[in-house]
Amino acid sequence: MRITVISGGVGGARFTRGLLALLADRLPDGHGGTTAQVTVVANTGDDMWLHGVRVCPDLDTLMYTLGGAVHEGQGWGRREESTTVSTDLAAYGLGWDWFTLGDLDLATHLARTELLRRGLPLHRVVEHLAARWRPGVRLLPMSDQEVETHVVTDDGTLHFEEWWVRHRAAVPARGFVQVGVEDARPAPGVLEALADADVVVVPPSNPVVSVGTVLGVPGVRDALRATAAPVVGVSPVIGGAPVRGMADACLTAIGVATDAAAVARHHGLRATGGVLDAWLVDDADADTVGPLRAEGWRVQAAPTLMTDVPATAALAARTLALVDRMP
Amino acid sequence: MRITVISGGVGGARFTRGLLALLADRLPDGHGGTTAQVTVVANTGDDMWLHGVRVCPDLDTLMYTLGGAVHEGQGWGRREESTTVSTDLAAYGLGWDWFTLGDLDLATHLARTELLRRGLPLHRVVEHLAARWRPGVRLLPMSDQEVETHVVTDDGTLHFEEWWVRHRAAVPARGFVQVGVEDARPAPGVLEALADADVVVVPPSNPVVSVGTVLGVPGVRDALRATAAPVVGVSPVIGGAPVRGMADACLTAIGVATDAAAVARHHGLRATGGVLDAWLVDDADADTVGPLRAEGWRVQAAPTLMTDVPATAALAARTLALVDRMP
Repeated sequence: MRITVISGGVGGARFTRGLLALLADRLPDGHGGTTAQVTVVANTGDDMWLHGVRVCPDLDTLMYTLGGAVHEGQGWGRREESTTVSTDLAAYGLGWDWFTLGDLDLATHLARTELLRRGLPLHRVVEHLAARWRPGVRLLPMSDQEVETHVVTDDGTLHFEEWWVRHRAAVPARGFVQVGVEDARPAPGVLEALADADVVVVPPSNPVVSVGTVLGVPGVRDALRATAAPVVGVSPVIGGAPVRGMADACLTAIGVATDAAAVARHHGLRATGGVLDAWLVDDADADTVGPLRAEGWRVQAAPTLMTDVPATAALAARTLALVDRMP
Repeated sequence: MRITVISGGVGGARFTRGLLALLADRLPDGHGGTTAQVTVVANTGDDMWLHGVRVCPDLDTLMYTLGGAVHEGQGWGRREESTTVSTDLAAYGLGWDWFTLGDLDLATHLARTELLRRGLPLHRVVEHLAARWRPGVRLLPMSDQEVETHVVTDDGTLHFEEWWVRHRAAVPARGFVQVGVEDARPAPGVLEALADADVVVVPPSNPVVSVGTVLGVPGVRDALRATAAPVVGVSPVIGGAPVRGMADACLTAIGVATDAAAVARHHGLRATGGVLDAWLVDDADADTVGPLRAEGWRVQAAPTLMTDVPATAALAARTLALVDRMP
């Protein structure tokens, strides 16, 4: 069984971890893993150059989460992390005063930067780094080319991470720009992973700056629309608020209500030019099921809070079942 | 009083620390320092790009030693150092297996690299970094341009640091090449520091790849020959062996005996086309005093082992006294 997930950071990583737990249970490989092949296509629009090192927040969150190295409490970064280097950098009056950079995380960034400098394309770099963590999935960047999400505000544009982390998304966004996207191509394997999948899942990642960014890479949206596999999404909005992060600020910026049904309609039904066939909403949004069904959606309500791995595995099961792909 | 020191790493740094202790005692400024102005012109031929960060071994050794942050036991690097990042890099199959890179040291390299990327010339970068450590001297790189000492061996050439640190200078060197030196200029302040000094000191640094490299920057040798100040050197060789490091391998490569008198003759008397007026040898090499005097040298024997700061201050006193510049 081949499953392709289009993912941002924490939400997508946690969903995929639950999915792998489900698959290990239903399609075990005899070694604690699964015979199912899961490919994760990760957003790289949050990536940036910071003091000469290349930082890839979503790829690292996926790698650490699926590799068992993530700091569970914060959902990103490494467990047992220290900040010796960044503290000392600050003593020089330098460093990232708004961006937490741990020593272990820095090692990942330095390793990545070195491999990029050697001329490896990003997907090969990811392959090299992931070999250490054995995430149990094929982890692909959406593109080998640098695409950076910038945020348009009344005071000019800034890198998404600066807006998100430094300003906590409190500066009103008027829109988002994918710098470099016109020259970007899907990384090798991305289009194939969408075309050859038995099911494509859009986990509860940020619909605008994570999922939307991946969909913005030329060719990805068309591949998603063309695949024979059903495409099923899980709402990142519960009861009118994002479960995590500040997706509401992103939705507002593009004129979409922070509402489970509105997000579904934003992605759109494949039958009518969109990218999804089915949509799983939280039980708290059960009132959206009727209206969406009336519009042609396969939709169900379920518990969608990813409180732990078993709950997330159950969510993954409901997600696959919604499009009749429960193994 | 203005003193200019032409320095490599550990030897020059320790000598300068003793010199500052002497000056603080003889020419106190009332705040624990000295009214004397000491300028150190540092070798940057050992500098290198390592995984995208700029490493400047001699500048850092000077900065840490004079700033009280050096690891005394090893003579270079930071005290209370850790290796979290390099250990984690190694887990990626990357990193510097032959080059110890501590976390605190890495912070210095990242700070430097960031400032270089911002477009600051190296001497301004050094100024910024040194502001934190307050070394009590004006620390100048020999040049803002990148000059890298490469070692010629029978199997090709390699960077000096690789030969020195990785191969422990055990691969026979056939000579040294200063890559980039023809395009290098003395950093701002270097020629003035030589011209305006009351005395110029060549401390017991490596005569070939430290002192020799600084002298190789176009204009430096001429400035040294032209200055009105006396130029006095301290032999880095005691009893036919380098006190520290593997200077013998460097001397052998250029056909100079590892011998206090031979090193003096290699530098040469200013009166006959060289760069020195006077030469301080160790008591163990007292037999060289007569012959060198016969050749026109001002030369004396003294205890030259820099066992601690007081002993080094005494050595600095003997050095200045030799050219009648003892304050």
